[in-house]
Amino acid sequence: MVEKAQEKALKELDEFGNQLLEKLNKKEAPSFQIPSRTRSNVEFDEEKEIIDITGKKSTRSFINASHVRKFMQTLLVARAAEEYIKNNRTVSKRELYYNLKHKLPGTNKNTWDDDNESSAVIDDLEATLGIVRQQMNVSAKSRGSIYGDITLKQAGDEFSCKKLGKGGWAIPGNVEDVEIVDYDAELILFIETEAMHSRLVEEGSYDDLDALLVTGQGMAPRGVKRFLKRLQDETDLPVVAFTDGDPYGFYIYSVLKHGSMQLAHVNDYYAVPNSKFVGMTMDDIDKYDLHNVTENLDEQARKKIEHNLNYEWFKYHPEWIKEMKKMRKKGVRIEQQALANKSLDFVAKTYLPEKIENEEFLP
Amino acid sequence: MVEKAQEKALKELDEFGNQLLEKLNKKEAPSFQIPSRTRSNVEFDEEKEIIDITGKKSTRSFINASHVRKFMQTLLVARAAEEYIKNNRTVSKRELYYNLKHKLPGTNKNTWDDDNESSAVIDDLEATLGIVRQQMNVSAKSRGSIYGDITLKQAGDEFSCKKLGKGGWAIPGNVEDVEIVDYDAELILFIETEAMHSRLVEEGSYDDLDALLVTGQGMAPRGVKRFLKRLQDETDLPVVAFTDGDPYGFYIYSVLKHGSMQLAHVNDYYAVPNSKFVGMTMDDIDKYDLHNVTENLDEQARKKIEHNLNYEWFKYHPEWIKEMKKMRKKGVRIEQQALANKSLDFVAKTYLPEKIENEEFLP
Repeated sequence: MVEKAQEKALKELDEFGNQLLEKLNKKEAPSFQIPSRTRSNVEFDEEKEIIDITGKKSTRSFINASHVRKFMQTLLVARAAEEYIKNNRTVSKRELYYNLKHKLPGTNKNTWDDDNESSAVIDDLEATLGIVRQQMNVSAKSRGSIYGDITLKQAGDEFSCKKLGKGGWAIPGNVEDVEIVDYDAELILFIETEAMHSRLVEEGSYDDLDALLVTGQGMAPRGVKRFLKRLQDETDLPVVAFTDGDPYGFYIYSVLKHGSMQLAHVNDYYAVPNSKFVGMTMDDIDKYDLHNVTENLDEQARKKIEHNLNYEWFKYHPEWIKEMKKMRKKGVRIEQQALANKSLDFVAKTYLPEKIENEEFLP
Repeated sequence: MVEKAQEKALKELDEFGNQLLEKLNKKEAPSFQIPSRTRSNVEFDEEKEIIDITGKKSTRSFINASHVRKFMQTLLVARAAEEYIKNNRTVSKRELYYNLKHKLPGTNKNTWDDDNESSAVIDDLEATLGIVRQQMNVSAKSRGSIYGDITLKQAGDEFSCKKLGKGGWAIPGNVEDVEIVDYDAELILFIETEAMHSRLVEEGSYDDLDALLVTGQGMAPRGVKRFLKRLQDETDLPVVAFTDGDPYGFYIYSVLKHGSMQLAHVNDYYAVPNSKFVGMTMDDIDKYDLHNVTENLDEQARKKIEHNLNYEWFKYHPEWIKEMKKMRKKGVRIEQQALANKSLDFVAKTYLPEKIENEEFLP
């Protein structure tokens, strides 16, 4: 897998360079086109069910005074990316920033002065080359873990994610080179909080539900999202999400399913449009009598509901609009862990098996 | 290990209950003594080199109207803790809060109304019984990971932390039941940032430095601190810390070494007083010519320096006062990853091996 992912990046980097070289050979001013990543060029693609960018592009030219700095920075990163791949070294964004920061020869100017500059260029290159930065060996944050009956291979090591005590496997920031060797599961369960993940590991839900238990510890970072996407693509198992019943949990789910606005140019690499949502829902409060363990919505949560109501990808599903309005009317939110009020094992022995068996999902 | 840790908790809980029962049998008002955890009762114990609480105690009595609610809550948690241990179930603090929230019979009052109440009681019980909450099966946050030549055992699984691709083992919130089966290392290296941890894993530093590479991803959570403490106690390997060269990194180190003020009542379980500090230091900037990749101190960082300068545990080491004053004078801070400015492998092939070999440490 690593070879394929890297090969694509090398190929794209090569083409990118050759295209500039051709212009130079023809004595033309070197320039290239960049897909526009501004908010106004982000749209919800109803066919793919993914947040995407429109086709609009802008040009970055070496002989335009207002472009030249960014032009230089883009080539700086492109060259470094090729080097990182060839040397088999992965860097973080911050490391790349430091690695490539230096005085330009004959001047007192730095290649860049803060990492907003380098980060923007990395995103630009992703959009321009149609790849994710991990393929250029620029790593995402490592956070989150997986537990369940799956055997993986990375860096020559083959290991089971079921035989790791209670800790599970820490999902690294770059999973492009992770190989799925074998698995025995019916379901990929994405769990918002790490504490609920631990509960389900302890209760043996990987066995009872035949599930691969994945947590992103809140909003899933790129590494976890990419890993989920690859798991889904390569196993064809359904992804079921389990978050808090609040506008933040719903938003986390929507990012998993449709992608995020910030990553609109690469959502194809992250979004899992056929995901389902198992809970927590407003109906759970009544059905399981959880009225004593709800929390009142504060001003911020109410604002977040209004934001959600206005997003195209929520509007696309009438069920979600209904759910959000129900929450607004009830004036409460409910956390995953509130299920502990019934009993500690209620979530594992009753709630999840029942809802999953009966396919009580939101889309 | 789990048995020992839990046994101690059960024994202490038993004694705690029996002591109350004795009073009831003697028709005395039940009451118990709690070590005071207020800031004014926190002191730096120079002999142990640990931040500790003074011996001052207060009494909590069932027949005092202002104590009765907390008294009830304390017994509620104590009873639940015994149950958790006996049922072999681990809970998060938030789960405990929900698990034990209910209306008191015959009243309209809840056992508690927010988790500040339950959290305070858990801390009180830790202080009263002289144990950490993990021994009562109340878990800490899971964050951070370990990579290196060590074989661990938990929940019946035995696994090597070297054969896990690039991910390492995700350190769980409760490590009391983790057994150290075997290891081959000379050093425990604590690394502040996850990105630097990944760099050192990729460079093979666990081999080159013969090190167990541990990261807490910023300020180490209880699970990681407890794991480090146990590692050090049971292997007798030196702990070397590697943080950013800024007042926050220095503080993270001081917590690792001397404990924290918040956990003053249980620092014996967390602090590793014989830790050493390898970097980043202000001298590194000159020695390795890193002037172009420092960051200016902002107002907040300057305030943090002044705070650090006033802590007894920093004053205890003149070297640290000198270091902090040097930073104040230079007006800059330096991140771990700034070493990438030399080359990506500089930290692994030059910086760490040199400084560790020559024992260029701060105390």
